[in-house]
Amino acid sequence: MEQANAILLLSCPDRKGLVARLSNFIFQNNGNIVHADQYTSTSSRHFFMRIEWELNGFELRREEIPMVFAPVARQYGMTWELHFTDYVPRIAIFVSRHLHCLHDLILRRDMGELPGRVEAVISNHDDARALVEQFGIPYYHFPVAPGCKAQVEQDQLALLKELGIDLVVLARYMQILSPAFVDRYVNKIINIHHSFLPAFIGGNPYQQAYDRGVKIIGATGHYVTEDLDEGPIIAQDVIEISHRDTVSDIQTKSKDLERIVLARALRLHLENKILVHESKTVVFE
Amino acid sequence: MEQANAILLLSCPDRKGLVARLSNFIFQNNGNIVHADQYTSTSSRHFFMRIEWELNGFELRREEIPMVFAPVARQYGMTWELHFTDYVPRIAIFVSRHLHCLHDLILRRDMGELPGRVEAVISNHDDARALVEQFGIPYYHFPVAPGCKAQVEQDQLALLKELGIDLVVLARYMQILSPAFVDRYVNKIINIHHSFLPAFIGGNPYQQAYDRGVKIIGATGHYVTEDLDEGPIIAQDVIEISHRDTVSDIQTKSKDLERIVLARALRLHLENKILVHESKTVVFE
Amino acid sequence: MEQANAILLLSCPDRKGLVARLSNFIFQNNGNIVHADQYTSTSSRHFFMRIEWELNGFELRREEIPMVFAPVARQYGMTWELHFTDYVPRIAIFVSRHLHCLHDLILRRDMGELPGRVEAVISNHDDARALVEQFGIPYYHFPVAPGCKAQVEQDQLALLKELGIDLVVLARYMQILSPAFVDRYVNKIINIHHSFLPAFIGGNPYQQAYDRGVKIIGATGHYVTEDLDEGPIIAQDVIEISHRDTVSDIQTKSKDLERIVLARALRLHLENKILVHESKTVVFE
Amino acid sequence: MEQANAILLLSCPDRKGLVARLSNFIFQNNGNIVHADQYTSTSSRHFFMRIEWELNGFELRREEIPMVFAPVARQYGMTWELHFTDYVPRIAIFVSRHLHCLHDLILRRDMGELPGRVEAVISNHDDARALVEQFGIPYYHFPVAPGCKAQVEQDQLALLKELGIDLVVLARYMQILSPAFVDRYVNKIINIHHSFLPAFIGGNPYQQAYDRGVKIIGATGHYVTEDLDEGPIIAQDVIEISHRDTVSDIQTKSKDLERIVLARALRLHLENKILVHESKTVVFE
Repeated sequence: MEQANAILLLSCPDRKGLVARLSNFIFQNNGNIVHADQYTSTSSRHFFMRIEWELNGFELRREEIPMVFAPVARQYGMTWELHFTDYVPRIAIFVSRHLHCLHDLILRRDMGELPGRVEAVISNHDDARALVEQFGIPYYHFPVAPGCKAQVEQDQLALLKELGIDLVVLARYMQILSPAFVDRYVNKIINIHHSFLPAFIGGNPYQQAYDRGVKIIGATGHYVTEDLDEGPIIAQDVIEISHRDTVSDIQTKSKDLERIVLARALRLHLENKILVHESKTVVFE
Repeated sequence: MEQANAILLLSCPDRKGLVARLSNFIFQNNGNIVHADQYTSTSSRHFFMRIEWELNGFELRREEIPMVFAPVARQYGMTWELHFTDYVPRIAIFVSRHLHCLHDLILRRDMGELPGRVEAVISNHDDARALVEQFGIPYYHFPVAPGCKAQVEQDQLALLKELGIDLVVLARYMQILSPAFVDRYVNKIINIHHSFLPAFIGGNPYQQAYDRGVKIIGATGHYVTEDLDEGPIIAQDVIEISHRDTVSDIQTKSKDLERIVLARALRLHLENKILVHESKTVVFE
Repeated sequence: MEQANAILLLSCPDRKGLVARLSNFIFQNNGNIVHADQYTSTSSRHFFMRIEWELNGFELRREEIPMVFAPVARQYGMTWELHFTDYVPRIAIFVSRHLHCLHDLILRRDMGELPGRVEAVISNHDDARALVEQFGIPYYHFPVAPGCKAQVEQDQLALLKELGIDLVVLARYMQILSPAFVDRYVNKIINIHHSFLPAFIGGNPYQQAYDRGVKIIGATGHYVTEDLDEGPIIAQDVIEISHRDTVSDIQTKSKDLERIVLARALRLHLENKILVHESKTVVFE
Repeated sequence: MEQANAILLLSCPDRKGLVARLSNFIFQNNGNIVHADQYTSTSSRHFFMRIEWELNGFELRREEIPMVFAPVARQYGMTWELHFTDYVPRIAIFVSRHLHCLHDLILRRDMGELPGRVEAVISNHDDARALVEQFGIPYYHFPVAPGCKAQVEQDQLALLKELGIDLVVLARYMQILSPAFVDRYVNKIINIHHSFLPAFIGGNPYQQAYDRGVKIIGATGHYVTEDLDEGPIIAQDVIEISHRDTVSDIQTKSKDLERIVLARALRLHLENKILVHESKTVVFE
């Protein structure tokens, strides 16, 4: 007996009858909806929906669903994705020298909290090799020398392709990805930025927060786009600081935030709860 | 042209085709769904839904809807309510001597933030009369002498009925309502409790929080049931305290919380976003 | 018997023996310290202290304290202020058309939560007159026509001087104060900015937050300096939002924040718990 | 040149001249105070202070300080402790089968964030051995069979003594320690409780939180006393939940909280920032 669910994530211009059309599609094929989340933007009159239904008893085989659904999607001008809950996404984690997020993700993977498989840790340094390999995860060191960045990215893309990577996670990766790289993984690269965006864009936000004397700092998980720090925001969180906190104290507090916010962003993506529309996300929690 | 929306709030045992049946009901009568929130409890297999659609273009007149929908509801064993967004609920606020919540509600009413009409302020003291009447709200003083409580409640119930009250708000009302009173307004009496329930049930939670040395205090907005402090929780919030906070400091900090949490609970109720099931709420935010 | 306390707020370059010198000054005059907070910046080696002691039993009369303390202060190069807890500061509130913060401050004054006296509400509009006068507070309407701003500021400064105002509160005042005005009340003008500074500097931060798709919004209470939105931050707080929140929802949520953050900043100032050093605050909570 | 600081943590009945007496003690021996935090309870008139000063230039050798300070302490009836910032406390972590807090502490130790040395992980199960030993930490397995608990505790106490353990951390240890054990480590055993105490005392707080339908859950770091869940609270934090969260979702969210709250409580203890008085803590942050 099939235990998995199917998930449709879709968006289109709003029209009468959309919810009925979609729920009928599932009901007429004898599916049982377990989650249905819908949102219509009142400003843009755009319609967003996430429907999850049980494959058990559903009369279409997995591979038939896209074929049968495509005409419906075409009729309404839908952008759509189909996922199955028993598919385990393949993740590559990019990291430089700050390892707290990497370590946290490995811990969650070990505890069974990460709904994905870490297929590779990729770094421009070799520092984390022992830690990573000790947990049985392959480690790839790509030194980035001046002038050879384009070649390195090509090699990385080849590796990602070979490993069948679904999601790239920048867990404090200190290199900027080129537009060519980003275009290959649209809405499939998640970065953790160590500030409450759009405050403190760019380098060393800990120092910037200290210098400005803010009373709260934050962290932001977002999809990577060509414009650095401008990608659609998935999750944010904050923590209080005071005048007593040095730059180093701010860093220590921020690291806890970064780990939690990155993990939350990842989980939402891996559970197929995010729709991106223009520069923003619709997150069905 | 009709600008209002209709809202169906319903729950029933889960079955295949529920979302389809409900969205078809609306679509077949030419309605346009603007919000649809659905939740199925995985533990109890109970189904909850809130659907909001535009009356503009809908082919049933308001008064016809219940008649046409009743057979659907019967078929699936639904508990349901129908609301219209242009109906302005009539509110009675009960208060004793702590007036911060009352004052806050009056402020929100003045700023147009309260989606309801305050028809009466009812108190066992006469202290707040000047404040309330100055804003043009009728004030009713019901002194509660020992032994006459039952009679007072009867008089209050008569007044509420006469005024057509839809929602009773206990904005720090220091009298316990009898089961007979509560039964007349099931899930229609909202209380603000000045602690993070279930911590510090009962009298003087500020002192209890101080004595226990907690580092965080809270406030809870909940529906009133026969069991004091056991009603379904609608909203909660918290704030940090430290050893430096005296009981009086705790009270001051808590008052801000109480105002915000009560206002949030009220708004959720008045916007028909809450379903009560057994001792818990489903809140569609 | 004297019930009030004296408070010294001071800062100077760090040196050995500062705490001893200061506590001896009080002890040798038979004072009893009830609060002593000290902080030394490790980056600038600057020393900050707030000491509060009972005047009851203290051997110097209030007016003698500055004279006796001045040589100590000179010796260490201190910047210092002396306050007494029974002095009730005189406050002027500036407001334009958004009245939620004004209303909140009036409520707190009524509940005895504001450790100061509201001597004037000053506005470039006449809208709030009825509300304000109803609570017995004088209302001053200064229309700001193009080209006459300098004159209006002169008139306002004359009024503030006449009323002996200690603290100016910009409770959503939509006019920019000139450097000449600000210089007259250095670290004595508190503004509430309706965003989490430094994010969304400038006009319409609600719309900016909506457009950027942030998941958290904030409010900032700060001293006003010549550089708009760059003054020393006193207090900040945040609240979560989601894709479902329209600009108007964001505004409604933010208003609660603004009220609380402004009230917190005011309380800290009025209780003499803030030291300003360069562009930042030291807040002894 | 001596880089370390000395820290005095003390409390006594309030009296005039305490701050002066203490700061003079340091100044007269040519010490430079870098932090001084003081608090007097207005209800109990009890005085608490934490003073930290540089040993560099201080005229007493470390071992002389207690001897010279003892008469001062006696005169005022002080309870006091003396610490040095370059001493690295020796920690034993007790754990059962939930390993998220253990894993987190190991991560922080690896990143240099834990101001202490983990000398032993002690468990009633053998599950975590591989994980722990892989990081070079000794692992001790003490199976707890019915009837042999007293013996196991004696063996554990002997081990702690042999290892010179300063702090015992119960990182989700599912055994209740006997009063005899607790008496040997008064205010030196820190437990993480997986609820917002005093809500949901006792077993399975995740289920309790789910059943009660709370909208916020918490975690509590506290010293262990004979009365289970009644020890002095060091740190607490909370996170929002909704009706959509199953017991398992609550557990997942809570685990992040537990890790952060336990780490915060540990850091405060290891930095000698906590004074315990009766059943409460004074935390100088």
